[in-house]
Amino acid sequence: MSRDLTHFNEQGRAHMVDVTDKQVSQRTATAYARILMEPQTLTRIREGKMAKGDVLGVAQVAGIMAAKKTSDIIPMCHPLPLTKIDIRFEEHPEVNALDIYGTAKVSGVTGVEMEALTAVSVAALTVYDMCKAIDKGMVITTVCLLEKTGGKSGDFVRGGGSI
Amino acid sequence: MSRDLTHFNEQGRAHMVDVTDKQVSQRTATAYARILMEPQTLTRIREGKMAKGDVLGVAQVAGIMAAKKTSDIIPMCHPLPLTKIDIRFEEHPEVNALDIYGTAKVSGVTGVEMEALTAVSVAALTVYDMCKAIDKGMVITTVCLLEKTGGKSGDFVRGGGSI
Amino acid sequence: MSRDLTHFNEQGRAHMVDVTDKQVSQRTATAYARILMEPQTLTRIREGKMAKGDVLGVAQVAGIMAAKKTSDIIPMCHPLPLTKIDIRFEEHPEVNALDIYGTAKVSGVTGVEMEALTAVSVAALTVYDMCKAIDKGMVITTVCLLEKTGGKSGDFVRGGGSI
Amino acid sequence: MSRDLTHFNEQGRAHMVDVTDKQVSQRTATAYARILMEPQTLTRIREGKMAKGDVLGVAQVAGIMAAKKTSDIIPMCHPLPLTKIDIRFEEHPEVNALDIYGTAKVSGVTGVEMEALTAVSVAALTVYDMCKAIDKGMVITTVCLLEKTGGKSGDFVRGGGSI
Amino acid sequence: MSRDLTHFNEQGRAHMVDVTDKQVSQRTATAYARILMEPQTLTRIREGKMAKGDVLGVAQVAGIMAAKKTSDIIPMCHPLPLTKIDIRFEEHPEVNALDIYGTAKVSGVTGVEMEALTAVSVAALTVYDMCKAIDKGMVITTVCLLEKTGGKSGDFVRGGGSI
Amino acid sequence: MSRDLTHFNEQGRAHMVDVTDKQVSQRTATAYARILMEPQTLTRIREGKMAKGDVLGVAQVAGIMAAKKTSDIIPMCHPLPLTKIDIRFEEHPEVNALDIYGTAKVSGVTGVEMEALTAVSVAALTVYDMCKAIDKGMVITTVCLLEKTGGKSGDFVRGGGSI
Repeated sequence: MSRDLTHFNEQGRAHMVDVTDKQVSQRTATAYARILMEPQTLTRIREGKMAKGDVLGVAQVAGIMAAKKTSDIIPMCHPLPLTKIDIRFEEHPEVNALDIYGTAKVSGVTGVEMEALTAVSVAALTVYDMCKAIDKGMVITTVCLLEKTGGKSGDFVRGGGSI
Repeated sequence: MSRDLTHFNEQGRAHMVDVTDKQVSQRTATAYARILMEPQTLTRIREGKMAKGDVLGVAQVAGIMAAKKTSDIIPMCHPLPLTKIDIRFEEHPEVNALDIYGTAKVSGVTGVEMEALTAVSVAALTVYDMCKAIDKGMVITTVCLLEKTGGKSGDFVRGGGSI
Repeated sequence: MSRDLTHFNEQGRAHMVDVTDKQVSQRTATAYARILMEPQTLTRIREGKMAKGDVLGVAQVAGIMAAKKTSDIIPMCHPLPLTKIDIRFEEHPEVNALDIYGTAKVSGVTGVEMEALTAVSVAALTVYDMCKAIDKGMVITTVCLLEKTGGKSGDFVRGGGSI
Repeated sequence: MSRDLTHFNEQGRAHMVDVTDKQVSQRTATAYARILMEPQTLTRIREGKMAKGDVLGVAQVAGIMAAKKTSDIIPMCHPLPLTKIDIRFEEHPEVNALDIYGTAKVSGVTGVEMEALTAVSVAALTVYDMCKAIDKGMVITTVCLLEKTGGKSGDFVRGGGSI
Repeated sequence: MSRDLTHFNEQGRAHMVDVTDKQVSQRTATAYARILMEPQTLTRIREGKMAKGDVLGVAQVAGIMAAKKTSDIIPMCHPLPLTKIDIRFEEHPEVNALDIYGTAKVSGVTGVEMEALTAVSVAALTVYDMCKAIDKGMVITTVCLLEKTGGKSGDFVRGGGSI
Repeated sequence: MSRDLTHFNEQGRAHMVDVTDKQVSQRTATAYARILMEPQTLTRIREGKMAKGDVLGVAQVAGIMAAKKTSDIIPMCHPLPLTKIDIRFEEHPEVNALDIYGTAKVSGVTGVEMEALTAVSVAALTVYDMCKAIDKGMVITTVCLLEKTGGKSGDFVRGGGSI
């Protein structure tokens, strides 16, 4: 049963799953996104961060605000009183990549995977928006869940080689 | 100058670029997203679509509604009176992939790349949300712009082998 | 063709209809809602209005704000730069009814029927919310379009006896 | 006192009622909406559902998303962490009617009547929007609360003949 | 530590502070705003309130609705299930001032200072909006926190002469 | 007439003024806000900006995003396709003040005063939020319109000594 598509009601239509009787527990989720870009774009972002224009600063505010909007963006997501959102960036110039990590936390009855995934997706889209004048070919090559803890379905950790 | 990071003001802070004097033209953009999943997940989605539960139906409404929220989600995006949004799905069971195409259109002073990209991103996240009970390892492996038309910077078409 | 369900794309999925090439014209729409309630509820609303508590004042602000959110609430509605919204109330104590009229106006490429209908629906729901402590049995007995003008499909006026 | 219009403060102005000291209990509410339409419109909706275009699928997503926005739409509603929303449709071709039932649930300090009512209202408006190209005369003839459970004011069940 | 700028993560970037382990307590906050205007503007507002047009009624609904949107407006604010919002007005014709008091309350893990401050700010901006046709020179001369209770950092009461 | 409170309809209730027939012109508005704080708070903000934590960067994103939400926050404001928003900060350590300037621009039928005022208000509230852990006594001492251009009512420039 727990391996079923749980978002459909007895009419075969989507509904917001009943979580009224699920137990409150502390839940966390961490998601990951990678963006590939031209080398000079990554250089510009890095200089911007150190000097004046802060692409990553804007992207990070965007990701945090989007995480709070998750239940307004993803139709079957429950509204949740998020207690933490954090976004970190890692530059990998050797592969022309910018990596984004987002962690969400809540003490509640459902998990926060979608909040973490929404945070990194919107942060990545914001990076694209702010750099598209110089690099329209940027590609978001990965958006995935890295790990989650808490809840009845147990913890999840992505296998080492699987990103 | 047009190849500069245009989202920063003279204090080096982000701002919403002045487009007051840009000319109104018809603009389109098409974006693409791919999700990889376990074979049985894709099968379930397909059956759902034909029978009762319609994951893609929900994902597509989510993508359309998100496209209309783009300027509320992406900090430096201009509000735009979108005149069209369309989302299409393609199943590629041979590679365990679901492909999403999103097209946005406007008659306005700025492009709709971000609207198309937001549409496919949110559609993909919604697919993840609705299937995560059976497949937490799903990965969004590509989000990118396929093409745009209209505007001073000219048309853009992604090179054939570059997705 | 214009008598077809226009919200579906060639995959049979809903999309936001392409209105890029439709002509800008001045469009208006007026919608109507009726709420039936216990006589003393209507009396209380009236006294409130004259004395202190203003149920209708709150309902009317709610309706106006909701009209502006229409494209965020109704999935396939186009975003529109509304140029006017007005809501009027009529009390009909002889039938224990409160009537609500909402008029929306725009100079644009699509009609404003949904904006007017959303305005009166939300105004009616707000009246319910503010009075439900004394009258949970209130019923919204009619929500409909009274008339529209502008646009290619021509004007519409509801027949006299048809509400 | 509990039979008073509770949304007004001592200045006679509306406020959001203080529920800080109310007890958390499990609360449910079910609301109902009926739409009358031309026979062929109902037929089209039914065919759409079975074949390709799914008016009800879109309406149902719209209703669920609107329920989550209730406190943003209805001015004096408290924000609530909804734990369930479900929407069901019933076709009554014998009276040219489409009936909509919406159930909301929460474990909280205030009831979810407005969430259920908002869900069915927006689902009904969405049906109107998606069919208005072929039937502008559709009328929403009933929006009302069917029942609620939980909370200090006790349960409510609408009398049999009263819809 | 508690006197540190707590909104920054170890990368020096803003994040939403982790409050998962903070204790739930009852928290209140009261904020204040003053608007200076031409004498005749204040007179018009007062007459409006008594007679027909109710500037303060609209401003107060705006303030309440904005308080509920606080976590959507202020980037690092946690979403909170507000249990009370109240706004009061005081006219001070002797100094051509309109004073606004806003009180917010929650049983939660973070304070509601921002909710109270957002409420009075938006109420004041709404007064400006509704009167700007006759008095563009209006100035909001004070927005500040008057007092807060609850939470680990203890109570705060603004010193007598310090507004 | 143009000196009248234009937001009220013939029932004395607020409505969104009809601007359908007003002429499109280019409109700008600049607003101003000042925040007073303890000297060490201002120092911390400055150091943060140069080193790592960027209070002003977050405040500025918040102000820009809020400007785009103006018609969702201020009840009688028309939705507008803003073409520019810019926010600048000036530190005045000699008076322990941080000054915020916000400029909005549109080519449309109504002015953008409220967009500029909302931008600086929300930027100021965000500064408060991000520094309140160390300085709850911060006061926003001024929010006002500095100038506007465009539109039938003509230009407005605040008199030299009047802030």
